[in-house]
Amino acid sequence: MITITDPRIEEYLMGLVPENDPHLLDMEKRAREMQFPIVDRLVGRLLYMLTRIRQPKLVVELGSGFGYSAYWFARAISISGKVVLIDSAEQNVSYARRLFEETGLTGRTELRHGDALRIGPEYEEIDILFIDIDKYQYPHAIEAMLPRLAPGSLVIADNALWHGRVVEPDGDKESEGIRRFNDFMFSRTDFFTTLLPLRDGVLLAYRLN
Amino acid sequence: MITITDPRIEEYLMGLVPENDPHLLDMEKRAREMQFPIVDRLVGRLLYMLTRIRQPKLVVELGSGFGYSAYWFARAISISGKVVLIDSAEQNVSYARRLFEETGLTGRTELRHGDALRIGPEYEEIDILFIDIDKYQYPHAIEAMLPRLAPGSLVIADNALWHGRVVEPDGDKESEGIRRFNDFMFSRTDFFTTLLPLRDGVLLAYRLN
Repeated sequence: MITITDPRIEEYLMGLVPENDPHLLDMEKRAREMQFPIVDRLVGRLLYMLTRIRQPKLVVELGSGFGYSAYWFARAISISGKVVLIDSAEQNVSYARRLFEETGLTGRTELRHGDALRIGPEYEEIDILFIDIDKYQYPHAIEAMLPRLAPGSLVIADNALWHGRVVEPDGDKESEGIRRFNDFMFSRTDFFTTLLPLRDGVLLAYRLN
Repeated sequence: MITITDPRIEEYLMGLVPENDPHLLDMEKRAREMQFPIVDRLVGRLLYMLTRIRQPKLVVELGSGFGYSAYWFARAISISGKVVLIDSAEQNVSYARRLFEETGLTGRTELRHGDALRIGPEYEEIDILFIDIDKYQYPHAIEAMLPRLAPGSLVIADNALWHGRVVEPDGDKESEGIRRFNDFMFSRTDFFTTLLPLRDGVLLAYRLN
């Protein structure tokens, strides 16, 4: 386990982004209390910015948890756009449904309960694909979703540094999944890929055609 | 001085992006030999990706050095777009001129020799503003350039963590300049701002209107 970013830097960065949105604060509190993994505020803000710049019509999330990342996407997308959430836990989907009802974002979101690897490929012409499922599944996920991506689309994968375990291979299937996924994305000439050492690592891949 | 990102992570990231473009390799070698500050390959790739996604008509650089960052911008911009380089050192501008001649990018670039704070405001409807001049000048630079930015434009500032000195204020004018600049950008409600702990810190601010 490696500390990716110096904690004093992380503290400085968090100090720059105070938040007063009660829904975000609630979700961040819930994540801390339940020790539930969310992308955190700094990654959330990156998702928001990329969505504003790219102006997608369709965002598909594989592994939405209770809706934290989708809330950033949904607030950034135009009113004619749609964010599809997929999660295998019924209680996560219920929480997200209530969140979007309370925040008036129901019209821009679609909630799916079940296996992301099965439901994800139902969509096509995806402009932003967000991957945050079990880490060993990342290679399968991108393989299944590649034909569903629009030209100029953006693939965003969380945990692309997996607590630094990518640099200290320990043979576990999660670390291996992430390493294989990263190698795969960077090897493809039809994508332009970067990996940001933000929080636990965010891989961004832009489809060139 | 703080090590922002664990060196093993940086090594892993660099291992993912081998490069065979002779011009990039030449510039990276030149930077090492002359100890000349360039944004490096990881930040260069981020600039490339953001340019592909945003599709700017006009990129203006304040502080171009010998053209490393501009080379990434110019390769990513459409043939009808333009990247303006500004640098106060004649030899940097000459190097960049030769670089763009050799790589067929002259038509997409404009080279200006002189004071970036004076020349920059000559342009308007700027889609991407890149700031990489002396750090104490960042607050003046953004003040001078704000009226020149297009709606939906992107401000990208390098060295936004200034070797970690932003978290350990030592009263020197460079650190103070960066701190004031960051605080200013994050305080503005007409921009949505993030700061990525990539290399020496990259601030991204998206103009909302």
